[in-house]
Amino acid sequence: MTPVPPRTVDVVVIGSGSGGKMAAQELARQGRRVALVEDTRVGGFCPYLSCVPAKSMLLSAHAGIPFDEAVRVREEAVAGRDDAGAVEGLGADGVQLVRGRGRLLPGRPLTVEVDLPGGRAERLRSGTVVLAAGSTPVRPPVDGLDDVPTWTSEDALSATERPGRLLVLGGGSVGCELSQAYAGLGSEVVLVERDEQLLPGEARWVGDFMAGTLRGSGVEVRTGVTARRAEPDGRGGAVVHLDDGGEVRADRVLVAGGRSPRTQNLGVEAAGGSLDDSGAVRIDSRCRVLSPQGRPVPGLYAVGDVTGVSTYTHSANMQARVLAENAAGRDRETDYAAVPRAVYTAPPVFCVGMTAAQARRAGHDVDSEMFPLGQLERANLIGIGCGDEVPGGVEVVVDATTGVVLGAACAGREADSWGAELALAVRARLDVDLLEEHVRGFLTWSEAVYPAVAELRRRRLERAQRAAA
Amino acid sequence: MTPVPPRTVDVVVIGSGSGGKMAAQELARQGRRVALVEDTRVGGFCPYLSCVPAKSMLLSAHAGIPFDEAVRVREEAVAGRDDAGAVEGLGADGVQLVRGRGRLLPGRPLTVEVDLPGGRAERLRSGTVVLAAGSTPVRPPVDGLDDVPTWTSEDALSATERPGRLLVLGGGSVGCELSQAYAGLGSEVVLVERDEQLLPGEARWVGDFMAGTLRGSGVEVRTGVTARRAEPDGRGGAVVHLDDGGEVRADRVLVAGGRSPRTQNLGVEAAGGSLDDSGAVRIDSRCRVLSPQGRPVPGLYAVGDVTGVSTYTHSANMQARVLAENAAGRDRETDYAAVPRAVYTAPPVFCVGMTAAQARRAGHDVDSEMFPLGQLERANLIGIGCGDEVPGGVEVVVDATTGVVLGAACAGREADSWGAELALAVRARLDVDLLEEHVRGFLTWSEAVYPAVAELRRRRLERAQRAAA
Repeated sequence: MTPVPPRTVDVVVIGSGSGGKMAAQELARQGRRVALVEDTRVGGFCPYLSCVPAKSMLLSAHAGIPFDEAVRVREEAVAGRDDAGAVEGLGADGVQLVRGRGRLLPGRPLTVEVDLPGGRAERLRSGTVVLAAGSTPVRPPVDGLDDVPTWTSEDALSATERPGRLLVLGGGSVGCELSQAYAGLGSEVVLVERDEQLLPGEARWVGDFMAGTLRGSGVEVRTGVTARRAEPDGRGGAVVHLDDGGEVRADRVLVAGGRSPRTQNLGVEAAGGSLDDSGAVRIDSRCRVLSPQGRPVPGLYAVGDVTGVSTYTHSANMQARVLAENAAGRDRETDYAAVPRAVYTAPPVFCVGMTAAQARRAGHDVDSEMFPLGQLERANLIGIGCGDEVPGGVEVVVDATTGVVLGAACAGREADSWGAELALAVRARLDVDLLEEHVRGFLTWSEAVYPAVAELRRRRLERAQRAAA
Repeated sequence: MTPVPPRTVDVVVIGSGSGGKMAAQELARQGRRVALVEDTRVGGFCPYLSCVPAKSMLLSAHAGIPFDEAVRVREEAVAGRDDAGAVEGLGADGVQLVRGRGRLLPGRPLTVEVDLPGGRAERLRSGTVVLAAGSTPVRPPVDGLDDVPTWTSEDALSATERPGRLLVLGGGSVGCELSQAYAGLGSEVVLVERDEQLLPGEARWVGDFMAGTLRGSGVEVRTGVTARRAEPDGRGGAVVHLDDGGEVRADRVLVAGGRSPRTQNLGVEAAGGSLDDSGAVRIDSRCRVLSPQGRPVPGLYAVGDVTGVSTYTHSANMQARVLAENAAGRDRETDYAAVPRAVYTAPPVFCVGMTAAQARRAGHDVDSEMFPLGQLERANLIGIGCGDEVPGGVEVVVDATTGVVLGAACAGREADSWGAELALAVRARLDVDLLEEHVRGFLTWSEAVYPAVAELRRRRLERAQRAAA
């Protein structure tokens, strides 16, 4: 590789996923010369290989359309995985696209070396570098997994063939969404999660809601079990042995075990930054990369999955906005307290802020209350809870001392819509007194929030009376 | 009529609709002896003759089920209009039900005379009387309307026959909902509204959205036209002449022209209270009835439609809660700033707080911004805006000086759910800076809020810069 002479720009962004692309465009709009380095598709995974195709396949599955038609609709939604539209958008904002893989070199000024196609390399010098290199799927430690046909979620979301029998390893949001999508599109699906519940980390009732919902969609759900060993079944498929002595036969094993930050060969440490135990770039609340001593490295920033802080498109976008706001001279910090966690199954799940368990671990005196949607007028009208559908509910978690809302879990019809009220309540640090006084429309799903907050307020009043006595 | 000897209780509530029933039950739970006077069904109109059956018929219409089946489902939703369940609930809380029509008599202590069935009367004496007598439909001034077959909304919501051709007079929320319901269930529907837009009082684009939505459902929408004269068509139906020279032939004319407070013969003025120009009981922010001099009349309260302040089940409930909170010694005032106005068509409309025009009239320096849902990722995924469906949008209205959100209009899929975020923003007096910083989930409908608030914030920053220059 013969490096061409270094080129100087104002900003180099490595990685063009949700966060990197937005950071590049916002900084370019502020008048900076921005180079955006991308080795695959401009736009990252979200529009082509994760959020968008997943939601598209779920919508098709709910609509009951056949697999081939679902694939056609999905390919339209992802624009055939062609990034021409995204590239055009960059051009309009004056962002220069550099196709290749980028890494930081040691020394100052900050220098990014890009491996260009054809074996050449280019060096970009810049006062500011934004790391947005994304993440890669984690492969679970299952013996023999390399010897059987597997999919990552990206594979499942670009596949044009449907496995007759699909084993999904991992009951987080991706595993749950893909289980329901493939089950709805005609596959026999077995979902295995090693935790005692689906959606580990969320409240137990939320995991139970999801298990009931997926079972209602025909998915065989097995929790508290771990896949230990896989072997070919001799007919092109797999036999997977579980630690409870059972085995699952499948045409395809979908590995949905989370993602890890893509920091290998990124040069973070060479340039003065540091990584945490999970390999994520350490940043502060202004997305400045931290040195091993915890001080911001001048000019070096990171956003998105590579930071490991929050792995959503919308949190990456928030980070990019914070970065751009600070670059424009307006001090702003990231706030992850109210980043929503949505699962787009039907019905969906929408969680925000802390669970009761997390709030306790964080040292809060916690109170929480759950109200089941099945008791709501709206649910009665459409007969929810009378048939197979799990009605769902809403749980509000508060600090018992201050009454401030710390988190909420919403599950059931349109939960990803009406949950927005509680996300804002968490973000704005509102308390149950205000939420109890607030008026919600008769026959809206939002009415479910009232009984929960009214009960929390009642207990607060009781507690205050006891304290005064 | 020979009055039986007066009976003394702690509270008399006249009228058992949403507000009256809740007030009675809350006060009884606080340990008071409460008599609830009701001359028709316990529970009022909402569960039997308005909100609940309307939503039921709309859901059936959207689901495409036939009229007879829709009637069956509706009659189940309204429990055959039998109030036995509601009566049982009263008994459980210790509320005494007095069946008959009640009115206040002059003098002190406060005395309510109840005309009992069979020509007798009973007098109830009490330190506290709550007026919750409800409202009655307004009949529009159309010559000859009494000579043709008409329906009130209550009739339309208890009918077991479907008119082949239905003329709806009035394009408010009730007229719009019933138009879509009957059109969806197979009637030919013509909707006539004298205002230039449907949903008069809401933003113009909201009315246009509703017109487009109803036209998409097959309703013939005519705005800016007034019905002047009706005559029998000689075949059991009606010919209605409009002020633009046109005429509409229909089997049935549905009068959906609003409601007026039911204060005739209620004795409000005899007991020291006063009525406003529309005949509504004048109250203060604690639901205390005001004297002609504007002072609270001791012991006399009013909630619900009879107050004319806000004619929703949920606002009547808020009034009842405020009354009960004050009775329990906790000072609380009503706050109508964030009472939502939902229209449950498909797609629905959800408005809250002030429109831009109302805010200007209230003296605010107003800014507002509308974002069309059709530009949203979520809409693209399901092809909204590509077919017949009007995609809708979200408008946020702010005070340009403070940035505080004064109102919002949401129209489109699930708008009655995701609009809840903006209702809370209005209630909590949040500003666009916070709403702009707030993170919404990728692919949720709520994402529509961001572009609107980001633009409002941008203009605020610009204005601040100009002011500083």
